[in-house]
Amino acid sequence: MAATVHDVFLLFGDSVTEQSSDAGGLGQLLSAAYTRKVDVLNRGFSGYNTRWAIPILEQLLAKKTEQSHVPGVRLLIIWFGANDATIPANFQHVPLAEFADNLSTLVQLVTDPSSPYHSPQTKIVLITPPPVNTLQWGAYKASQEPPEELERSLDLTKTYAEKVKEVGLKEGVQVLDAWTALWKAAGEVEGNLSRLSHDGLHLNADGYKVVYDELMKIIVDKHPELHYNKLQDVFIGFLDIDPVNYRQGLQKRQA
Amino acid sequence: MAATVHDVFLLFGDSVTEQSSDAGGLGQLLSAAYTRKVDVLNRGFSGYNTRWAIPILEQLLAKKTEQSHVPGVRLLIIWFGANDATIPANFQHVPLAEFADNLSTLVQLVTDPSSPYHSPQTKIVLITPPPVNTLQWGAYKASQEPPEELERSLDLTKTYAEKVKEVGLKEGVQVLDAWTALWKAAGEVEGNLSRLSHDGLHLNADGYKVVYDELMKIIVDKHPELHYNKLQDVFIGFLDIDPVNYRQGLQKRQA
Repeated sequence: MAATVHDVFLLFGDSVTEQSSDAGGLGQLLSAAYTRKVDVLNRGFSGYNTRWAIPILEQLLAKKTEQSHVPGVRLLIIWFGANDATIPANFQHVPLAEFADNLSTLVQLVTDPSSPYHSPQTKIVLITPPPVNTLQWGAYKASQEPPEELERSLDLTKTYAEKVKEVGLKEGVQVLDAWTALWKAAGEVEGNLSRLSHDGLHLNADGYKVVYDELMKIIVDKHPELHYNKLQDVFIGFLDIDPVNYRQGLQKRQA
Repeated sequence: MAATVHDVFLLFGDSVTEQSSDAGGLGQLLSAAYTRKVDVLNRGFSGYNTRWAIPILEQLLAKKTEQSHVPGVRLLIIWFGANDATIPANFQHVPLAEFADNLSTLVQLVTDPSSPYHSPQTKIVLITPPPVNTLQWGAYKASQEPPEELERSLDLTKTYAEKVKEVGLKEGVQVLDAWTALWKAAGEVEGNLSRLSHDGLHLNADGYKVVYDELMKIIVDKHPELHYNKLQDVFIGFLDIDPVNYRQGLQKRQA
């Protein structure tokens, strides 16, 4: 059994993505906005970095020979960096240069015509990691039993966020700069980031709303064909059903 | 491209299902609880009744010959009746006997060994339509321009809810009696249903929570293998990743 009649938006990332099916999360907001049009798949992996993401994405994507049999990925969001940007002593850390290479590899799996997963109709948006609030996250780490050392810094996340923008330019894909959008929403004061995060690292509904609004701006400006107002429902609305010969009108359509 | 590595829970119904990807909705709560294990697909169709549902479900299910190539449906929720139970003059109305036959047809598409869509590993839960609050819904209809007549009654929804329970017994599948659970949560007072609904017909987060809790009871009691605590993540947790030979451990597993 399948239920695979919809194309998908694939949200690929770390815990910031994994938690986004919670109420007010990016995944939830997209699911609600795109119901009956595309399926929004949460492929968030808490704790993962871009190094470990590569073998995962190879299993999420269909090969060219399989693509006609499976749902198309209309939009691929790649949102890593929060764990890559931990301090070098942390086992999740990925050096900045490798981080850039890994992000390029992830993008090129889809965009490179020689890739077995090449999918030119898939739009890609990279998202930069959020700014960490070390006051809030540090207090959380210190409260653990036994207490844990702070393994992140605001500056490191900024450095990795800047790198994502470079990769986007190099690879020719859109970048949603969540770092800057959230930083501005906090009035450029680290302590104020607590308004947008429940623990200093992960976003709350207000934080996700900032990112969702930025994504919608990118869709409107750069990929307008992906706006929910431009996609028809896969099955017709009930007011359009012919009550006598209803079967004919109830055939699946392209969203 | 696919991203179809997860099996699915298929939520099939009318607008009460369609709206359930909103924050606090049944679909949202399930999506958050089952992230990294199964995909929760919203297949809610506002205004649809069981008559129109049949050709839709035939397109949502894979035929036996296709099933090995597509995600399995671990759980199929069928939640219709709100529109079937409108008054006979309304074009969405379905007579009670046909409603029962249609529900049986939907179930048998999956359970009948002679059906091309036969899928014995799929568990099915029928949900009864919610009780309508005619005070609230009637006020909403009257507020339209031009004003609309009330086309629903509390007693009609109860009659259709009782019929769902009969079909469940006949077909040997579980029934979640949302009608009764919501009615009890409202203290068996029609006016109190406004605590559980934003318009008298559709549920708010408090109403969906009642249904979600009932569903979890059914899963624990009747289909415990579907509980999120019994399903492993499709990909391993990051603490289990071997930092040196990471590729081998990052293979997809059965949830």
